[in-house]
Amino acid sequence: MTITARDTTATTLPSADPTTATEVPVDLPSLGTRLEATRRLTEQLAEPLSPEDQTAQSMADVSPTKWHRAHTTWFFETFVLATFVADYVPHHPEFGYLFNSYYEQVGPRHPRAARGVITRPGAAEVGAYRRHVDAALAEAIDDGLPPRALELVELGIHHEQQHQELLLMDIKHVLSCNALDPCYLALDHSPAVDINGSVPAGQAGGSPGWEPFAEGLVEIGQPTDPATGFCFDNERPRHPVHLRAYELADRLLNVDEVLAFIDDGGYHRPELWLSDGWATVCTEGWQHPLYWQHDDNGWAVFTLGGRRPLRADEPVVHLSYYEADAIARWAGARLPTEAEWEHAAAAESFDTGLLDLEVLHPRPPTPRRTNGAAGSGAAGSGDGCRQLSGEVWEWTASPYVSYPGFEVAPGAVGEYNGKFMVNQHVLRGGSCVTPPGHVRATYRNFFPPSARWAFSGCRLARDLR
Amino acid sequence: MTITARDTTATTLPSADPTTATEVPVDLPSLGTRLEATRRLTEQLAEPLSPEDQTAQSMADVSPTKWHRAHTTWFFETFVLATFVADYVPHHPEFGYLFNSYYEQVGPRHPRAARGVITRPGAAEVGAYRRHVDAALAEAIDDGLPPRALELVELGIHHEQQHQELLLMDIKHVLSCNALDPCYLALDHSPAVDINGSVPAGQAGGSPGWEPFAEGLVEIGQPTDPATGFCFDNERPRHPVHLRAYELADRLLNVDEVLAFIDDGGYHRPELWLSDGWATVCTEGWQHPLYWQHDDNGWAVFTLGGRRPLRADEPVVHLSYYEADAIARWAGARLPTEAEWEHAAAAESFDTGLLDLEVLHPRPPTPRRTNGAAGSGAAGSGDGCRQLSGEVWEWTASPYVSYPGFEVAPGAVGEYNGKFMVNQHVLRGGSCVTPPGHVRATYRNFFPPSARWAFSGCRLARDLR
Amino acid sequence: MTITARDTTATTLPSADPTTATEVPVDLPSLGTRLEATRRLTEQLAEPLSPEDQTAQSMADVSPTKWHRAHTTWFFETFVLATFVADYVPHHPEFGYLFNSYYEQVGPRHPRAARGVITRPGAAEVGAYRRHVDAALAEAIDDGLPPRALELVELGIHHEQQHQELLLMDIKHVLSCNALDPCYLALDHSPAVDINGSVPAGQAGGSPGWEPFAEGLVEIGQPTDPATGFCFDNERPRHPVHLRAYELADRLLNVDEVLAFIDDGGYHRPELWLSDGWATVCTEGWQHPLYWQHDDNGWAVFTLGGRRPLRADEPVVHLSYYEADAIARWAGARLPTEAEWEHAAAAESFDTGLLDLEVLHPRPPTPRRTNGAAGSGAAGSGDGCRQLSGEVWEWTASPYVSYPGFEVAPGAVGEYNGKFMVNQHVLRGGSCVTPPGHVRATYRNFFPPSARWAFSGCRLARDLR
Amino acid sequence: MTITARDTTATTLPSADPTTATEVPVDLPSLGTRLEATRRLTEQLAEPLSPEDQTAQSMADVSPTKWHRAHTTWFFETFVLATFVADYVPHHPEFGYLFNSYYEQVGPRHPRAARGVITRPGAAEVGAYRRHVDAALAEAIDDGLPPRALELVELGIHHEQQHQELLLMDIKHVLSCNALDPCYLALDHSPAVDINGSVPAGQAGGSPGWEPFAEGLVEIGQPTDPATGFCFDNERPRHPVHLRAYELADRLLNVDEVLAFIDDGGYHRPELWLSDGWATVCTEGWQHPLYWQHDDNGWAVFTLGGRRPLRADEPVVHLSYYEADAIARWAGARLPTEAEWEHAAAAESFDTGLLDLEVLHPRPPTPRRTNGAAGSGAAGSGDGCRQLSGEVWEWTASPYVSYPGFEVAPGAVGEYNGKFMVNQHVLRGGSCVTPPGHVRATYRNFFPPSARWAFSGCRLARDLR
Repeated sequence: MTITARDTTATTLPSADPTTATEVPVDLPSLGTRLEATRRLTEQLAEPLSPEDQTAQSMADVSPTKWHRAHTTWFFETFVLATFVADYVPHHPEFGYLFNSYYEQVGPRHPRAARGVITRPGAAEVGAYRRHVDAALAEAIDDGLPPRALELVELGIHHEQQHQELLLMDIKHVLSCNALDPCYLALDHSPAVDINGSVPAGQAGGSPGWEPFAEGLVEIGQPTDPATGFCFDNERPRHPVHLRAYELADRLLNVDEVLAFIDDGGYHRPELWLSDGWATVCTEGWQHPLYWQHDDNGWAVFTLGGRRPLRADEPVVHLSYYEADAIARWAGARLPTEAEWEHAAAAESFDTGLLDLEVLHPRPPTPRRTNGAAGSGAAGSGDGCRQLSGEVWEWTASPYVSYPGFEVAPGAVGEYNGKFMVNQHVLRGGSCVTPPGHVRATYRNFFPPSARWAFSGCRLARDLR
Repeated sequence: MTITARDTTATTLPSADPTTATEVPVDLPSLGTRLEATRRLTEQLAEPLSPEDQTAQSMADVSPTKWHRAHTTWFFETFVLATFVADYVPHHPEFGYLFNSYYEQVGPRHPRAARGVITRPGAAEVGAYRRHVDAALAEAIDDGLPPRALELVELGIHHEQQHQELLLMDIKHVLSCNALDPCYLALDHSPAVDINGSVPAGQAGGSPGWEPFAEGLVEIGQPTDPATGFCFDNERPRHPVHLRAYELADRLLNVDEVLAFIDDGGYHRPELWLSDGWATVCTEGWQHPLYWQHDDNGWAVFTLGGRRPLRADEPVVHLSYYEADAIARWAGARLPTEAEWEHAAAAESFDTGLLDLEVLHPRPPTPRRTNGAAGSGAAGSGDGCRQLSGEVWEWTASPYVSYPGFEVAPGAVGEYNGKFMVNQHVLRGGSCVTPPGHVRATYRNFFPPSARWAFSGCRLARDLR
Repeated sequence: MTITARDTTATTLPSADPTTATEVPVDLPSLGTRLEATRRLTEQLAEPLSPEDQTAQSMADVSPTKWHRAHTTWFFETFVLATFVADYVPHHPEFGYLFNSYYEQVGPRHPRAARGVITRPGAAEVGAYRRHVDAALAEAIDDGLPPRALELVELGIHHEQQHQELLLMDIKHVLSCNALDPCYLALDHSPAVDINGSVPAGQAGGSPGWEPFAEGLVEIGQPTDPATGFCFDNERPRHPVHLRAYELADRLLNVDEVLAFIDDGGYHRPELWLSDGWATVCTEGWQHPLYWQHDDNGWAVFTLGGRRPLRADEPVVHLSYYEADAIARWAGARLPTEAEWEHAAAAESFDTGLLDLEVLHPRPPTPRRTNGAAGSGAAGSGDGCRQLSGEVWEWTASPYVSYPGFEVAPGAVGEYNGKFMVNQHVLRGGSCVTPPGHVRATYRNFFPPSARWAFSGCRLARDLR
Repeated sequence: MTITARDTTATTLPSADPTTATEVPVDLPSLGTRLEATRRLTEQLAEPLSPEDQTAQSMADVSPTKWHRAHTTWFFETFVLATFVADYVPHHPEFGYLFNSYYEQVGPRHPRAARGVITRPGAAEVGAYRRHVDAALAEAIDDGLPPRALELVELGIHHEQQHQELLLMDIKHVLSCNALDPCYLALDHSPAVDINGSVPAGQAGGSPGWEPFAEGLVEIGQPTDPATGFCFDNERPRHPVHLRAYELADRLLNVDEVLAFIDDGGYHRPELWLSDGWATVCTEGWQHPLYWQHDDNGWAVFTLGGRRPLRADEPVVHLSYYEADAIARWAGARLPTEAEWEHAAAAESFDTGLLDLEVLHPRPPTPRRTNGAAGSGAAGSGDGCRQLSGEVWEWTASPYVSYPGFEVAPGAVGEYNGKFMVNQHVLRGGSCVTPPGHVRATYRNFFPPSARWAFSGCRLARDLR
């Protein structure tokens, strides 16, 4: 597939990052245009998948592709059409039961762990459902919707973008369970991924550089200024946080480092792990990151393009928080807090998100400027942090809680974020399967510490003394 | 669908019942013809199902439709082609891993509970796999196969017939989990089912008649005489069993009786249940047989033709052993042993199996001859037992164990039956979804006592004193 | 402890075995005397155990010692005193809740798996409860009880004997979970057990002898003649069973044979196991019988007298049905049915039960008479089967079901046996921890096929052709 | 029992709160004296418990009383005696295996969930173990120990104090599982608890007062100055935190408020709960706080003194975080962060801990000074917060994570706190079963959000705008 999402849309999407405001195009695409582009991308992502592929659910956390397609449609139907369009009749009376995810206030739902049993509506009928709702939405927008409805359309766009990434995470898990090692797309591994030539283990360029940041009171989170564009409720309010002096690795944790951890017995040494993490290692029998495989030919990794050899210099992806934390401890480092990460990211030019359908796997870092005369940001003094976005979500040391002064949106959409603020950790940055324009420096993703099927990796941090 | 399996094939298939030998057609269909008919019927049964339908697995016991289609193919490929055809190359090197069910001696397998995640090969590719193996089998039979190979073809036919019934049981369970109440086929409930007109609860003809059998030493099981046709290893050897005098209900347990049990608090009275059964009732929250639903409109039942009202006079189906046992106890009766059942069935003209695609649900009994002058069998003195086959499998009081002198077949096919001889109970008779010609009076089906998704019901028995 | 239960009571207890009627003392001890002896033995068995020992519950199947002491007391209190003594006031209003085991018709109960949390009443207070009920029972018997009450006293005696064995099984499991390898009693392993001198593995006398039995119709079960003494309801009615010709090993399966099974990879070869058995092996990680331990010093076994080396010629004990079945299959044999076993036992002089507090572990067989002139029974032609009682319960191939014509006792005591007749297998013979006079040739013990904490072993059987 | 722990020790123990430094006694008790007093209190707490009581474990989180007594002894033996006393021989070679709790670096351990099966050593033998180690410790201290060893003795004292509270929490849970509603001690409920006379529901004084705190950068945590006395590693380093303006309820959440929550359907309204909390409510069937019971006589509560009626004005105890969070949301409030709480507590005179053996249950607040002229602290303007210590641990909104710059102690004691820093929430303040002198304003307790068996309640907080 020669047309990548990045090529066609990256320049036309707004950046939500206030620090890079000059890059925002003057002519914002209209809401309707962005809605249409988002809806189209979902279908484009489902295109390579057969009806069978779109039906399966490989674990409770995973949803079938066609369920994602239907649920995102239900979201618009329920919160926009059924609420704001006077005579709107839902496409099917039972679809609310089947495709509500977790909105308790909307009504009862099909059990989450059994979404794979919903064989009907089939993939084609879900397509018809999407077109029905798309048409009704377009008409409603044309006819004029009140501001609250437009806000919900905007929310629905960002919601659907989240499900685009989930769709790819989930189908990767489904396909990985099949001994045939099937491909989502036939990725051209070598030219797209292999920037530096194949790098054997132990020769991936050695230790990372370290970017220092001074102690001080910084601000994180989104200002309430509407000019900054859309953000989720959990990114607000912007507030001061005191940081000690710290430094961040200038690249992501890579395969070479994790192989050294494995060789050093890391998965067999309880003293390196959080107590709950060690219990999980023992129960699950973890010996390496998810999707890694070892056989007589050495280490390989399952990707959306099938199975291929691991590269020493590529970022590690599909780590749990427990693993990221243990590897950091083993390395004499720690994970950054979300405030430390955001402070560093605010100092950099922040890429607004990728999703190159020829890649779909995190790439090695670009080589450093050999003579980095000046750092790019006020906080750091080196060449800045690479790979802050577009490769892997970075686990932070911060549990997912509300910011001081957080306010939940009224009604059922108030369930969107707030009710998950326990037993999860924040991830930052966005990954190679995050849709264009979706992430920001202030964006807060979150998963339970045992989750590994997201495109999650990490960056090391250390106290500066 | 106007052409039923029964219409086209029932008269051309051999009866294995020696007591009805005169009904066996003189011209037995050749093995190849029967093979082809069996293979065709499987595809015919899968025909109404979409690729999505064919992929889902609703619980560990259920297998996806396309898995059944592939597994039965793998059975022929592995035990016949790969073993007896010198240069045969398996269709795909990984299909053995994916489609081996439980043959430990053949090699490792995809986990049973995760068959729903095998999205590839898809339904169409499974069709190609089937055609490939069909062609190779036909050629091998034409070229001549040794007797042991022909026996395994015969076994493969009966194996595939068992999976035809499993396919229907399993897809019924899959579809039942969907709030849309989807149909496998649009059955014409009323004319096909409603023989006597609608029968309200409490007016289903009262108590059953009772067919008496005298005390004595009887023989059960298949003789070794090859003229009796195919049987499974677990039906042999034929052996004497001493029976006390007993009587059997002349019809199956019906809905009317189970509604009375429910009204009498049957699902809330531990004294009626086996200890393990009561624990299951409490854990699972059973309040009625599987697929029954109660709402403001009264009792309905989910069938392969969707949801429809219950009829008081139809046989109860989808009972566990625990329920059958408890209802029998409540009724002052008990379940028959398999010897009692077989002794009675041997005295009757035994229908060789049904599967009418317009019915797919057990039917009420035909009315009795009003002036039943003479019983049909030596053992009984009444009009004989109705509904001994073709409606529901009948739970017996007999745990599934080997007959005295049982010998397991050598090699992997020896795993077919013997290794399941614990923690299961025998069912007899065959159901409305059993393929034509599959069952015999000596046929031993078996399920764990908690299983409810088979087409299982029961017939009451009592001691005669 | 020099006074063994056997020494003091064996000669004064009635044998229920009609074949050994001449050994029954002319003066049957009165019911009251036997009641008192039984009640005393329970306390004698609890004597070596501290209050702490008497409190613990190591798994759901195990009950604490003091719970057994209280439950057996509750049985008499509930079914005799509260029912037949007009003004009897239960010792404590909540003891019924705490010490009812499984009698649904008596009322709700403390959860079985949480009996270990009942710290009060303590061991001493349970003793007071026992004395209170003992006194009330003695008085009631003196005052005269109706026949039905006396039958229930008789039942209570046999019930308490069953709990005496359970008490020893259970405390063995409790103590085995402690790294200190604590002793119940300091058994003198060598003289009591070591009859033939230490026998290394592989030299335990080779294969067993085989005792043949002819084909024919035999009778099993207890006649209704009251002169035969007490039996449980599940032993009746006596009824004919047809047996093929068979032979039984003339001794129990021994350690030597199981070590050979282990050396031959028996615990790693699925083809030797029932399907449910293999699943259990994998889930539980079984590598050898329960209580065996292997370290640098070789094989040891945990006994009620602590840990000691295994002897090659001692009977294997603490096998599950799954293991007994697999080992028999590996040995080219099978397990006997309960009818085969009882037919053989009826032909032998049947020991009425042991329980030597200096032994508490099964002993090697006594050497054969070198010149065995005549077999003892009509059925066999050799020297007869040794070790039919007093060493280990022998797993049979027979699932535990009711005999033809079985009738459940009315009322709550009807729950005693019948409701367990599913998912269990019958064991025969009685063990080294069965109290004196408790077992008979017709006695039917039963456990689920995965249970290993009973004193269970097996004897091999084979078809004779 | 007329002598309370508070009376005898409270005035002699150091306060770790730097803001109340003038209250620290000039003559610190020597380490040896404090060690002896702590060791003695443990035995005093175990005194009312029988050997049976001391053995039981009612759930995996609970440890038996005698296990606590032995484990705290093992802690001193392992980290002090075996490490620093040259010729010390452990009391028993297997006690390390039995009584190590979670120190992976010390070696393997008896499984946590099976501590109830350790019947030996018994309660008396554990007493002997304690005396043996006490004597060796006293001798070692007399002989002179290096500073690191003395630090570990100090740590061992605080460790044992934590287990004193656990001992009481745990035995309360054990006793609560018994239908007899047994007492730990016969508490005199009325005079000790009933300060204001019985207060019916709905009349408990209405809403709390609210204590305001201004926005600003505050410091929390212990300074490194050794003059501040002992603290755990997780209380350091002291560091700045920015707080928004907020207010705290001037008393704990009380029974009256929770009854109103229940009456308002709080346990049946998912919109009030965190997602994981609601799942727990559904799975566990929660309808009210732990140990509450409702019957025809109204609401009662199980206490260490048995069962008694609830009082409307007493603090609610045995709440999970999920419940505290949901009730706060229902009340239009939230839980305070640990920084907010500590900032408020630093402004108050901080009671150093209670444990009155006549109370053992949280008490209603003392009445306010009717004319509160001046608040006690700089931050607040009212009368200050009551009940900041000595009644219940207060759940905070803060997940338990390390403070910025946290350093783990080297060696196995480094496992003490750090490895639990995930999936837990911080509680502050200390409870009615916290031993004297144990807590500080900086003290961080922690439990998983579903835990309810600690003496945990909460105080409401609100943003000030």
